[in-house]
Amino acid sequence: MRWIAVDWGTTSLRAWLMDGEAPIDARNDERGMNRLTPDAFERTFLDLAADWVDGPTTVRICGMAGARQGWHEGPYRAVPCTPLDGAGVKVPVDDDRLDVAIVPGLSQTAPHADVMRGEETQIAGLLARFPDFDGCACLPGTHTKWVHLSAGEVVSFQTVMTGETFQLYAKSSVLRHSLGGDGWDDDAFDTALSEALSRPERMVARLFGLRAADLLQGQESGAARATLSGLLIGAELAATRPWWLGRDVVICGSDRTMPVYDRALRAQGVTTRTLPAAESTLAGLASLVTP
Amino acid sequence: MRWIAVDWGTTSLRAWLMDGEAPIDARNDERGMNRLTPDAFERTFLDLAADWVDGPTTVRICGMAGARQGWHEGPYRAVPCTPLDGAGVKVPVDDDRLDVAIVPGLSQTAPHADVMRGEETQIAGLLARFPDFDGCACLPGTHTKWVHLSAGEVVSFQTVMTGETFQLYAKSSVLRHSLGGDGWDDDAFDTALSEALSRPERMVARLFGLRAADLLQGQESGAARATLSGLLIGAELAATRPWWLGRDVVICGSDRTMPVYDRALRAQGVTTRTLPAAESTLAGLASLVTP
Repeated sequence: MRWIAVDWGTTSLRAWLMDGEAPIDARNDERGMNRLTPDAFERTFLDLAADWVDGPTTVRICGMAGARQGWHEGPYRAVPCTPLDGAGVKVPVDDDRLDVAIVPGLSQTAPHADVMRGEETQIAGLLARFPDFDGCACLPGTHTKWVHLSAGEVVSFQTVMTGETFQLYAKSSVLRHSLGGDGWDDDAFDTALSEALSRPERMVARLFGLRAADLLQGQESGAARATLSGLLIGAELAATRPWWLGRDVVICGSDRTMPVYDRALRAQGVTTRTLPAAESTLAGLASLVTP
Repeated sequence: MRWIAVDWGTTSLRAWLMDGEAPIDARNDERGMNRLTPDAFERTFLDLAADWVDGPTTVRICGMAGARQGWHEGPYRAVPCTPLDGAGVKVPVDDDRLDVAIVPGLSQTAPHADVMRGEETQIAGLLARFPDFDGCACLPGTHTKWVHLSAGEVVSFQTVMTGETFQLYAKSSVLRHSLGGDGWDDDAFDTALSEALSRPERMVARLFGLRAADLLQGQESGAARATLSGLLIGAELAATRPWWLGRDVVICGSDRTMPVYDRALRAQGVTTRTLPAAESTLAGLASLVTP
């Protein structure tokens, strides 16, 4: 059976032509939710994928397209609950060849308010790949999600803005002058990670030192980037200790973030497995259309 | 004796016509260091203040105009040292009526790398107002400085990027959608401050909750702003505890930041005094020209 899988986020749109659970073609586009008004989504989708629509076509979507400002709102489902429920929320469309549904996000009110949109689909894919998994899913990204999974349900979760915070400091703060380029230094990362984990309350006082060490000692920007990353991820691990300590962890992220979190968690003696984010997204969306 | 005091920062320029220690006129301009090349500073200064130059004129400057990319570099002086030394670094000028000098910043290499430019002048002003002060100066701003003062010298200092971090989250992160306006809520500030001080390692995990509480519970943006401020200042106080604990503290900042830090420190039982930043800057620059 042919169908179309879509991951429609805030700043990007990815679509795959699927044959059952296997992707046979893929396209990317920069028309994310924040560039579109609700009435522009169907047109944008057809603009990208019209040649994949050959008669009645099933389209399953996850991500911010299901937000209030998106294509069609999929109201949050409250945890504890399974990551997905049925086939998603039906989307009214003009082109009657299309059968479109969007996966709703998840919400939590206690012990703290939290939301996710898109990650619930990755979690479903993770559970499809690792049935009966009981433990912690770590989904690093702009807003990293730490998720407690048990008996096929999302029990609770915690968002930490580590990716966005790194980008803000690296691109928009005074530190940008000292963090240019793409350099990296594993030793600097390990040192900063360990320091932030053992003294998390000192982390905020370490940041400006990255600028000062450049001005006074000509610190390499690669070492500075890795130190900033180590400090922020160390602070994140200190804050989320109850999520990962003594639990199996599956890390589900990009080629860039996954190895960094894997290194950080293994350094704490955590047993980790990894699953690429795109693979988990497709497995999650596929679970909506395949029995 | 008439002279001109200048506080020339990264993003702004403030000049005062002085009669001894008393300001008799003041002007502001947006041509900060980051809009100017080195050869444009003298022209910019005269553009702002030419009518104050009536024969030979003394001009004393503090701030980023003394950085490498500024008007004329004033190399950092290493602590421990007095905040000022002599009349500052002479600046070569074209207009020979002008006698211009810039105050150099301070640097520290141990226990951590740190720098300041401009705050050393405020500290000199603070010591002029409170002779023999022994304790901690807290200078809140974009980059808050915590300074240990003893026997008229800067012993050590610590920069925390709290002001810049607040602006980044409030203006450029996903939280901006939930932090609009100028609202404020003292109770929310106090609660967040106390929470971050007692559990500083949890602070980074609280930030995204400001967005979620808006989406799920319609949290007021004023409460969210005050909570963000309380979390960041709480984390700052936790990181700088050795600077303020058991010490007298003088807070030297703007009308906006000074009361917030005063409230936060008093809640920890700290004895505080306050001194407006502009007053301390002028008193510091005046100490260069008056015996």
